Amino acid sequence: MQKSIRKIAITGGTHGNELTGVYLINKFKTDPAIVKREGFETIIMHTNKKAIEKCTRYIDNDLNRAFGEKDLEDSSRSSYEDISAKLINQLLGPKGTDNPNVDFIVDLHSTTSNMGLSVVIDIDSQLAWQVAAYLKDTEPKVNIFRWMGDTGDAPFVNSVAKNGFAIEVGAVPQGVLRADLLFETEKLVHHILDFFEKLNKGEFEKSYKNIEIYDFVELVDFPRGEDGNIIAMVHPQLQDNDYARIKKGDPLFISLGGEIITYDKDEAIYPLFVNEAAYYEKGFAMCLARKRRIELEA
Amino acid sequence: MQKSIRKIAITGGTHGNELTGVYLINKFKTDPAIVKREGFETIIMHTNKKAIEKCTRYIDNDLNRAFGEKDLEDSSRSSYEDISAKLINQLLGPKGTDNPNVDFIVDLHSTTSNMGLSVVIDIDSQLAWQVAAYLKDTEPKVNIFRWMGDTGDAPFVNSVAKNGFAIEVGAVPQGVLRADLLFETEKLVHHILDFFEKLNKGEFEKSYKNIEIYDFVELVDFPRGEDGNIIAMVHPQLQDNDYARIKKGDPLFISLGGEIITYDKDEAIYPLFVNEAAYYEKGFAMCLARKRRIELEA
Repeated sequence: MQKSIRKIAITGGTHGNELTGVYLINKFKTDPAIVKREGFETIIMHTNKKAIEKCTRYIDNDLNRAFGEKDLEDSSRSSYEDISAKLINQLLGPKGTDNPNVDFIVDLHSTTSNMGLSVVIDIDSQLAWQVAAYLKDTEPKVNIFRWMGDTGDAPFVNSVAKNGFAIEVGAVPQGVLRADLLFETEKLVHHILDFFEKLNKGEFEKSYKNIEIYDFVELVDFPRGEDGNIIAMVHPQLQDNDYARIKKGDPLFISLGGEIITYDKDEAIYPLFVNEAAYYEKGFAMCLARKRRIELEA
Repeated sequence: MQKSIRKIAITGGTHGNELTGVYLINKFKTDPAIVKREGFETIIMHTNKKAIEKCTRYIDNDLNRAFGEKDLEDSSRSSYEDISAKLINQLLGPKGTDNPNVDFIVDLHSTTSNMGLSVVIDIDSQLAWQVAAYLKDTEPKVNIFRWMGDTGDAPFVNSVAKNGFAIEVGAVPQGVLRADLLFETEKLVHHILDFFEKLNKGEFEKSYKNIEIYDFVELVDFPRGEDGNIIAMVHPQLQDNDYARIKKGDPLFISLGGEIITYDKDEAIYPLFVNEAAYYEKGFAMCLARKRRIELEA
């Protein structure tokens, strides 16, 4: 694990209608002292400025799927988000190098799913696991989700540094600022800064040996008709119940006509990102995950 | 009050990202028998097809502000929504005539505010008041809000017939389908159809004499900085508490830095449409309303 930190980045507005991150960055920009700590530099950045202005998820395509290594090198990719991704990669990365410009990226997101305070880890970074374990230790209600993303190759903003993760908070509608979740997210940012300060000062003695995570298993789409239209909704019993275990026979969906569709596998499992607005167009209604404890390298 | 009904319209998707109405119309189109009743015709219509396809509130401008009488006559107005409004006006109106093509319009909306089941009435229609009173009588948790809209001249879809109103259900994020609210909205549609059936058959004996409503008083914007950016959020105590009375000294907002801004008028009042996503760009954080009982004509 990396033992010394020079520079980290807190990014927000990767999706322009996820206002928690957008406004936390506004707050930090207005008063940079809030995120200033001894021993390392904290960069504050809005990643998708045009989408923020328009309060929309993206202008041309999802910025948080634009950081695949091949896509970053593909000069034919020139949408607003593709260009932005390349610029962010130059500023904070570049991706894949041993010595990126920042040591850690925390990308702030929100979700319409009732995900509470979640950390989404998509890279195999021991430093990221240690920060996540510290967060969970400090704020027990934090949950850790290991997910390579819906495209499978972790093309997320935070992937351009060797270490980092996304924070997802919810439930909050797109285009809405909820005070409670903004302050809770800010608290997590402070814990992360504390961690790096302690690490640099050699005060972070306790290296976590293992961590409880939710590990990605599969995506489940809505039942759809021949025309592609959704014909069944998330069942009320599942709605708002992210991270609650379901077993064979439990309801997943209810059709517009009232017919119930159940979960039919033998393994009990944990639904996450249940009914996230942005995932309708991606074609999934929820992620299913396995709860497990994984060993960490010291 | 009009005593006989020939034709009514149920419209949805006026805002393309309010999925409750979009999918209820899908359901009714797939199985028209659901909304078929003896004695009158029920027209089912998606009003903003392009916005529904893109799952966005509107393409060029808010369709539900495009039905002002002057705007409908202004041939220079030619955005997608302006053209759509003129077409809808021809199909269901025309506005201002004594004998419009439909007798009543119910326009289905949803909101990120915790408005429960609300009826928003913007025209002085005794028939609309009687239907609203019947709904309130049948489903006591329904609330009635009298509002001329944020532009003051009721340029709503339902204004093209002489009678009608909007139904607003929440809280639901934009772009999200909530099963519970969809079924509750459908129940209201059935009550409305029942009302017209009874009216036509002469079985609606009970003419309501008065009704409890929330009457529009004023709009309150978010506190904003010099650059127009929001600098304070709806206070957690007010968030999700639409229709709950507030009095002088109660918190309205909390700044990004934690400073509380209170309600400072002497009259106790009722906040509605608290923290509705679509109203950020319109420049208001909530409506304030007075609760009162009004007399109805027999």
